[in-house]
Amino acid sequence: MIVIAERINATRKSIAKALKDRDEDFISGETKQQTEAGADFIDVNAGSNPSEEIENLRWAVQVVQQNTDLPLCLDCASPEGFETALKLVENDTVMLNSVNGEEERLQAIMPIAAESKSELVGLLMDDDGLPQSVDDRLNIAEKIIERADKEGIAVEKLYLDPCIQPLSTTPQDVGNVIEAVKKITASFPNVHMTCGLSNIGFGLPYRSILNRIFLAFLIHAGMDSAILDPTEPDMMATVFAAEALAGKDDFCMNYIQADRQGLLKPE
Amino acid sequence: MIVIAERINATRKSIAKALKDRDEDFISGETKQQTEAGADFIDVNAGSNPSEEIENLRWAVQVVQQNTDLPLCLDCASPEGFETALKLVENDTVMLNSVNGEEERLQAIMPIAAESKSELVGLLMDDDGLPQSVDDRLNIAEKIIERADKEGIAVEKLYLDPCIQPLSTTPQDVGNVIEAVKKITASFPNVHMTCGLSNIGFGLPYRSILNRIFLAFLIHAGMDSAILDPTEPDMMATVFAAEALAGKDDFCMNYIQADRQGLLKPE
Repeated sequence: MIVIAERINATRKSIAKALKDRDEDFISGETKQQTEAGADFIDVNAGSNPSEEIENLRWAVQVVQQNTDLPLCLDCASPEGFETALKLVENDTVMLNSVNGEEERLQAIMPIAAESKSELVGLLMDDDGLPQSVDDRLNIAEKIIERADKEGIAVEKLYLDPCIQPLSTTPQDVGNVIEAVKKITASFPNVHMTCGLSNIGFGLPYRSILNRIFLAFLIHAGMDSAILDPTEPDMMATVFAAEALAGKDDFCMNYIQADRQGLLKPE
Repeated sequence: MIVIAERINATRKSIAKALKDRDEDFISGETKQQTEAGADFIDVNAGSNPSEEIENLRWAVQVVQQNTDLPLCLDCASPEGFETALKLVENDTVMLNSVNGEEERLQAIMPIAAESKSELVGLLMDDDGLPQSVDDRLNIAEKIIERADKEGIAVEKLYLDPCIQPLSTTPQDVGNVIEAVKKITASFPNVHMTCGLSNIGFGLPYRSILNRIFLAFLIHAGMDSAILDPTEPDMMATVFAAEALAGKDDFCMNYIQADRQGLLKPE
């Protein structure tokens, strides 16, 4: 499981404030906590204020990579933001978050990902908006994979995100997401699948249990990455337990090793 | 989801001691806690010492039903135990735990279940021992359902248990259990499926996360009951979240109601 740690995101008030105040201690604390919790990438989103996004991203990238050896996932709206941040990245591995099936976005972001040899998140939405069905997702997945291939981006670099919508508003779509993950991983066994998890419980009580149980269902369906908060209680334990129970962890080696490393954190 | 609360079981040291000491306070405490946590049946197992099982069961049944309005699940090795306990049961509903596919057991228990109009747990094992495959489980399910039918026990009274074996010792069987639940519920839409959950994590650290994630997988596969500890942190939240995410809770009504009743208990 490739865990993209989501906490450093300017849509969170505490992060927006830390960016504004240039609060290095806060950002370095968030970086270290997520690293220790078992993240594989640290997402960096500085997009609270469009006019300051690039300057804020530049600052945040430097602070984050001073405090972790993990690669970054640059989470940005503008091509200029990616280009600016990529110049600062020291790790050989980096992820861009994100492209989608919209023509303008494909044209702007694909060449940057190709040239920088980045991993690339691809949201399964396009010029028609959010996907409504399994087939919508399959079609956009094919389109992104084909365009990536033309640009010289290998399918192994792509992390497709089926765009989870809230259970409370679109309950019929939850099953579509699970089915889409099964079908896309069956059709393209080398593509990664990821998702921004925290949308699922919007408007419902005890959202974190919905995050975790839905993550378990997605892992069982074939998802091999997620954008999540690894410091949330039982989140990483859920990742390792779901992989072991879904037959993706021979002899429970990863589960047992995670326990030894203190990543399961049972109460 | 039909929750059979498992804590009053003489294989637990504290329960064996309470039975021996005739500790009413302890048994009534366990009964009330499980009732408040959201159980549908209270399992009563007094089988720590075969020579005293029937006397202990008689005492425990009386104490438990003085402390709950829930029906009991009588969990007993001997036909005599069931007959003795059934005479004491006050609730119109009662469950017997269990019959299995062994010829001797079928002959001994089926008539008791039929005459008392009890719900009946049926373990999917037989004279050849524990099931090894999906087909083993399907065959034993058919056998138990047929025999029940001949005895006048409706399929709706049966709770088939696929016999979960530990992930650590028989990892290949975990997928078989999930597949068996799907196939049996597809073939017999009116039968209930339940399981003793706590075997799954035998020999592994942090067993309770394995219990919960496997329960979520089983609910997604079609299981509608489980024998579990409803007081375990996040256990009932997992039940309600898994049902909502698996499309078994229209408009999340049960999930929201469980929250209002305090059953989700978020940290």
